[in-house]
Amino acid sequence: MTTTQVIRNVRPLGAAAVDLVLEAGKIKALLPVGSAAPELPCLLDGQGQLLLPALVESHVHFDKTLWSMPWRPNSAGPTRNDRISNEQVLLKNFDVPIAQRAGALTEHCIALGSLYFRSHVDVQTVWGLRHVEAMLALRDQYKHLIDMQLVAFPQGGLLIQPGTTALMQTALEMGVDIVGGIDPAAIDRDPVRHLEILFDWAVRYDRGVDIHLHDPADLGRWEIERIADMTQAHGLQGRVMISHAYCLGAFAPVELHALADRLAELQISIMTCAPSHVTVPPVAMLRSRHVNVCSGSDGIRDAWSPMGNGDMLERAMLIALRFGWSKDSDLEMAFDMVSTGGARALGLPAYGLAPGCPANLLILPAENLAAAVVDRSPRRTVISRGHIVARDGVFLAR
Amino acid sequence: MTTTQVIRNVRPLGAAAVDLVLEAGKIKALLPVGSAAPELPCLLDGQGQLLLPALVESHVHFDKTLWSMPWRPNSAGPTRNDRISNEQVLLKNFDVPIAQRAGALTEHCIALGSLYFRSHVDVQTVWGLRHVEAMLALRDQYKHLIDMQLVAFPQGGLLIQPGTTALMQTALEMGVDIVGGIDPAAIDRDPVRHLEILFDWAVRYDRGVDIHLHDPADLGRWEIERIADMTQAHGLQGRVMISHAYCLGAFAPVELHALADRLAELQISIMTCAPSHVTVPPVAMLRSRHVNVCSGSDGIRDAWSPMGNGDMLERAMLIALRFGWSKDSDLEMAFDMVSTGGARALGLPAYGLAPGCPANLLILPAENLAAAVVDRSPRRTVISRGHIVARDGVFLAR
Repeated sequence: MTTTQVIRNVRPLGAAAVDLVLEAGKIKALLPVGSAAPELPCLLDGQGQLLLPALVESHVHFDKTLWSMPWRPNSAGPTRNDRISNEQVLLKNFDVPIAQRAGALTEHCIALGSLYFRSHVDVQTVWGLRHVEAMLALRDQYKHLIDMQLVAFPQGGLLIQPGTTALMQTALEMGVDIVGGIDPAAIDRDPVRHLEILFDWAVRYDRGVDIHLHDPADLGRWEIERIADMTQAHGLQGRVMISHAYCLGAFAPVELHALADRLAELQISIMTCAPSHVTVPPVAMLRSRHVNVCSGSDGIRDAWSPMGNGDMLERAMLIALRFGWSKDSDLEMAFDMVSTGGARALGLPAYGLAPGCPANLLILPAENLAAAVVDRSPRRTVISRGHIVARDGVFLAR
Repeated sequence: MTTTQVIRNVRPLGAAAVDLVLEAGKIKALLPVGSAAPELPCLLDGQGQLLLPALVESHVHFDKTLWSMPWRPNSAGPTRNDRISNEQVLLKNFDVPIAQRAGALTEHCIALGSLYFRSHVDVQTVWGLRHVEAMLALRDQYKHLIDMQLVAFPQGGLLIQPGTTALMQTALEMGVDIVGGIDPAAIDRDPVRHLEILFDWAVRYDRGVDIHLHDPADLGRWEIERIADMTQAHGLQGRVMISHAYCLGAFAPVELHALADRLAELQISIMTCAPSHVTVPPVAMLRSRHVNVCSGSDGIRDAWSPMGNGDMLERAMLIALRFGWSKDSDLEMAFDMVSTGGARALGLPAYGLAPGCPANLLILPAENLAAAVVDRSPRRTVISRGHIVARDGVFLAR
């Protein structure tokens, strides 16, 4: 039996109120408010609240979170390598399983309105495939509620850590969705070989690519050019993401127009968390040249930093602060990065509020999109595939 | 009759739990938990929550907020002067009185745990003393709950707008607490004369000085040196604040050691909201050289920007993000800027959790100071002068 239900009186993206008809977990129709058949079962009376598609978390590290654990003062040294080795020591023998920590955080993120995730999963010789196994199980556990993509992520380096390439291939064979890389120059010290391996795997296993790129300024920019070359050479248009890309913040935007046009043509997405203590990609310029840009939380309460809460509306607010945005159109751009831009980056087949899309929805009190980003109301109702799964920050689908 | 009451089982700044004895609106004693006399009336069972002194908002513009109003898309042009003139047009004939907007925001800020405020008040020829009158009335209306300092603030310039100096003097005579200035070079174009006037008034009216300084890099730094000169010449040590001071972020911290030492010696405080789209003062270096640093919200939902919510714990979190801080000691430094550093900047005579201080308190669930900053729990109990005035974000003292 297929149940047809209606969400009455919600304003899609701030437009005029509608009744939203749902069927078989999907959006069936948007009707003028009050015009859905009165006999249809009412899933929710929206009372004129804002209707949004569920949010997209395009870059997170669920497997390494310490969420739900007692507070742990950060103990890492100052460099990226210090942080990597500090984390290895901490997590290698951590006595609370990933399932518990990452599960608690996943449910928290769902309760905040995110139903689409790309989570990087550490593949390191220090713990082998333990994180991969745990995250594949977690993906399976929550697959009735969320779409979770996993990236095989060589946090400690790919070439510099002998044994990692074999683990990476096994991870991909086990079902990890995306080939991950990290700082081909600064960490692996052989950028061409690093990228060749990633793109070979992408073709061989038919997977996308997602590369952490913290390498600075001209070095990082040169690597982005090489990633573009390889994307083109391997026919991976639309399947490559460059995460962080701090280097793009080191130039005047006008200097990057040609590179931006190339990224747009190859449909390479840029992911930025818009951190405020480093340079960040010039989002407005990239978007004006049709580069897809998305955002994520990165680490949430982990060995790198205790910061973060997984709220993608807060992330949109932080993006706006990062660029000093105050116009509605700018705040809508920030919202796009945690919704449609993320969906495009993740290659989601049907995303949004159109008929046929999954009924993955976030309903909250806000006058419009800009106000939703600024206010980040905690009074959120989250609907996954036609079912209410969270209210007011409380996960209900356990 | 003086009532003695007790708050049982709270952890001051994260230390071991105590019973906090209050008398006549002040802290009387901190006793080991369980040792306060059982017959004492219990104001609150803290259940082991964190006890903080009420937060200090050192820089806000209550008079210009659009808080509690319908959403208004930002309509300002790109420059600072565009924003000033846009605001003049918007606010000149705004049909909702300042009392209503600023009152709603004041109560909201109280509910978030701030009980000490320094609010700049526009003194402009375009609306004369209207803002001053409204804010003096507001200060009076809430004086039983909060300490509010008002700064006479020549937003449109002091010399460049004929008639402003007379209005400023009237504002000071009416009881405004602090002499304000703004960009003596970029806006007023006669920095020495601008500063001479401010410091003359400070001496004549026996008031402190608080100068908005957005002027960039070497220009701003030169003005800070002149402010130091005048502070010394006029004997105003401990009574001068420089707000924003973006210029200090344009230099390597080591280049600023001598200037920092001078600011420390003259007890000139630096206020930064730590915005992420401009350069900001190097807080850690300044503090390491004993410069007092505090923070504020600046504008909250006004004609400049719709951003901001007055939450000083969120402000501390944003400060930490701005500098990439993740250590507990750094998060405690951020907290200091919205508490003790603010109290010092505002010259509050008794601030903190020691016996004799006003019982102005914030109690919330958090393991420690660092966690309080990161988590920003909305489950806050706010106590003003021994009375519970807000719970869970709801102002109760209307």
